[in-house]
Amino acid sequence: MRRTSGYVIGVDLGGTNLRSILMDGKARVWGRDSRESLASQGKEATIDQIVSSVRAMLEEAGSMDIPHPSISGVGVGCPGPLNTKEGIVYFAPNLSGWENVPLVRILRDKIQLPIFLENDANAAALGEWWIGAGRDVDDLVLLTLGTGIGGGVIIQGEVLHGAWDTAAEIGHMIIHEGGLLCKCGVRGHLEAYASATAVVARTLAAIKQGRRTILKEWLGGKLDNLSSELIFRAAGEEDELSSEILEETARFLGIGIANLVNLFNPRLVILTGGMIQAGPLLLEPVRKYAREYSLKASIRGVRIVPAKLGADSGTIGAAAAVLKRKGLL
Amino acid sequence: MRRTSGYVIGVDLGGTNLRSILMDGKARVWGRDSRESLASQGKEATIDQIVSSVRAMLEEAGSMDIPHPSISGVGVGCPGPLNTKEGIVYFAPNLSGWENVPLVRILRDKIQLPIFLENDANAAALGEWWIGAGRDVDDLVLLTLGTGIGGGVIIQGEVLHGAWDTAAEIGHMIIHEGGLLCKCGVRGHLEAYASATAVVARTLAAIKQGRRTILKEWLGGKLDNLSSELIFRAAGEEDELSSEILEETARFLGIGIANLVNLFNPRLVILTGGMIQAGPLLLEPVRKYAREYSLKASIRGVRIVPAKLGADSGTIGAAAAVLKRKGLL
Repeated sequence: MRRTSGYVIGVDLGGTNLRSILMDGKARVWGRDSRESLASQGKEATIDQIVSSVRAMLEEAGSMDIPHPSISGVGVGCPGPLNTKEGIVYFAPNLSGWENVPLVRILRDKIQLPIFLENDANAAALGEWWIGAGRDVDDLVLLTLGTGIGGGVIIQGEVLHGAWDTAAEIGHMIIHEGGLLCKCGVRGHLEAYASATAVVARTLAAIKQGRRTILKEWLGGKLDNLSSELIFRAAGEEDELSSEILEETARFLGIGIANLVNLFNPRLVILTGGMIQAGPLLLEPVRKYAREYSLKASIRGVRIVPAKLGADSGTIGAAAAVLKRKGLL
Repeated sequence: MRRTSGYVIGVDLGGTNLRSILMDGKARVWGRDSRESLASQGKEATIDQIVSSVRAMLEEAGSMDIPHPSISGVGVGCPGPLNTKEGIVYFAPNLSGWENVPLVRILRDKIQLPIFLENDANAAALGEWWIGAGRDVDDLVLLTLGTGIGGGVIIQGEVLHGAWDTAAEIGHMIIHEGGLLCKCGVRGHLEAYASATAVVARTLAAIKQGRRTILKEWLGGKLDNLSSELIFRAAGEEDELSSEILEETARFLGIGIANLVNLFNPRLVILTGGMIQAGPLLLEPVRKYAREYSLKASIRGVRIVPAKLGADSGTIGAAAAVLKRKGLL
């Protein structure tokens, strides 16, 4: 039962947390590990954490009599521009000192297993495709709605990497040319309108212009603690400003999704990230606007749903990436 | 020499003209046919024309001692929403009376060869990928800049069809939400800003507001004859209004291309259609704006070039579609 097929380890490397998972080819979970990524202590500290976390999974495997050779490899989901073919992390905004790091070579020397690199948003999409919200679908788009907006695209069951691994930069799609400035320096990007950061900024601007809102009471004047979660909760309690902000955000997301639907013709759009905790309050208007702005022939039959794997999508997706590269999935 | 590999026939079905080509698997051309598509005479007349054109190619093959069984099939590039798997044309804007036409079944009964359907813009992209501007590249985006804006996307050497063949609707990408109305009913689409129709409309509006331009002299007051070709020619002669319109158009196209570059990470962007006759006058500013609006990591190394196959891209691409479906390419 335990050794029906190969095993894989998936690692999700974030700016704060580092998670690992031990799975088999039938998507059963045999072990988990979670620790800090120690990003502020520099590159070596973080790489040591990855190695320790993977070794913890190998020990777990050993304790269950899973032999080392039956572990097909380790997938590492990583932020930032990277080269999946050569295994190099070019740059990672949340990991200090990471520049042109040949992560696959470094880890292979320390772990003696095949190592595969995958962009974190692509890994999330792959995880959801494998055993999450997209398990019955081969063409899907995933949007990560957090402080920024990222994404992953699956086409006929394969991750869209593009020519040099920079595809699916969904947040950097111009939806209003000449509009709000994105932190990348270009105006009008979806991220500048609909990320959690943008939601907070738009709300703060309205408060500073004198708009009344229950948020001021809730925060006791500490506006620095404002978050998209709080704004959407206030919208749920019919705070007028917050409801307007939520509706606007849904409209911008609907526009972004419409563009993706018209370009990729997916069967499924999966939303993940902190903003999605708002549930149907956000999801329903997003669906409405996506429908309104898409070509009828394309949007018909498209489902727009929240992700299912939560915080596990990254590790599971990184594990799936190994199975994919090995031709096992 | 002649019979080294299988032969294929490619058909390009347009609203005015119907073209066919006879090729072999090494991209050598053995015959061509061109006739009217007789779209105004109804569906049957056009289908008869397709059959006659294909038969002309078969006769050509016969006269060269190419045996019928060595012809692998017929590819038909066709406008409008269609189903490539089931071979159905749902609707074709320029072909009157075409609704839910099972074209593959109809043609197979009359021609006794495998028939394959492909969207016309996808066929153009496939043709350019096979032996045109994209012959050395596996990831490319093609934009057709005509009265509307269409497109085709090639990913790792395969056409992006999407879940139900509506992918790559590049003209219906929102670049300015709330902006100009597209003929599909949604505001802010690239097509509403940068198609030949939009270029003419923007110019006419400026003329009606009293802007001076050499175009009025050239047209002798017959503003109905205004075309994007004429406007771009006037820009080439430093007509101020026309130069402004060209620059704006290049900026809108640059924005659209930047979105495609950030989403697909292609190596190559190919521009085709009437507007491209303006040459470097349009192409240079398009390149400048695409570079300005794209993520640096994505645009670096991307070439933006005109198509090479001209009016042949459709027939050659339809022929390539047969080779693709047969696993010969």
